[in-house]
Amino acid sequence: MADRKGARIHVSLSLPNGGHLDEADIALIETVHKCRSILGASKLMGISYRKTWLMTDAMNRTFETKVVETFPGRRGGGAEVTAFGERLVALFRSVERRSASAAAAALGELTASLNWSFEAGEAQEANSH
Amino acid sequence: MADRKGARIHVSLSLPNGGHLDEADIALIETVHKCRSILGASKLMGISYRKTWLMTDAMNRTFETKVVETFPGRRGGGAEVTAFGERLVALFRSVERRSASAAAAALGELTASLNWSFEAGEAQEANSH
Repeated sequence: MADRKGARIHVSLSLPNGGHLDEADIALIETVHKCRSILGASKLMGISYRKTWLMTDAMNRTFETKVVETFPGRRGGGAEVTAFGERLVALFRSVERRSASAAAAALGELTASLNWSFEAGEAQEANSH
Repeated sequence: MADRKGARIHVSLSLPNGGHLDEADIALIETVHKCRSILGASKLMGISYRKTWLMTDAMNRTFETKVVETFPGRRGGGAEVTAFGERLVALFRSVERRSASAAAAALGELTASLNWSFEAGEAQEANSH
């Protein structure tokens, strides 16, 4: 990700079968890869187990190939990111990098036009569509 | 926008003063330009007047220059998009186009991997973070 002080572009993808992929999905795959467990990933990301499971299930059903393989029988459960899941992360991160390059000039121009006494609170309220 | 049947990339921008710009903000500027009124834009977009006003106010405070100028004294109120607001739309649409080009190959690969019997309902629930 970009440094926290800079302007940043966020991308998300909507797919023609009704599926959707965003930063949170990709972060989930990366966290499952690290934790090897859906429960562990939910704790590390600070989102509910139910939501974590629903996100994983949605990704698994979006594509012909599973993104995360779960092993309910294994001690403490367990999950592994598939090769396709790794490919998904690589593709998404590549789209992010290329979009960031494509947006660099525009972000520079916008940053030069900013009001630095702006208070984000109300804006965030307005932006929670 | 892309055709509704194709894969699509959505972009949003977070700015270093805490501000944020997304598709809904840009659509709002375009709709205000058409309606010349915040109330008219809120009706046309099907969002509440309060949210429309908060979004407009947040954009106006994000930058040094106003994006939308309001004329409360004018009969029936009224609003005009400023030259800076027009520039914001042009910049954002350009970022969208360039990101779409940058994402085209990845979106093609993802589309070729889709499960076409996917039901979007649960995925949308999982994606409403």
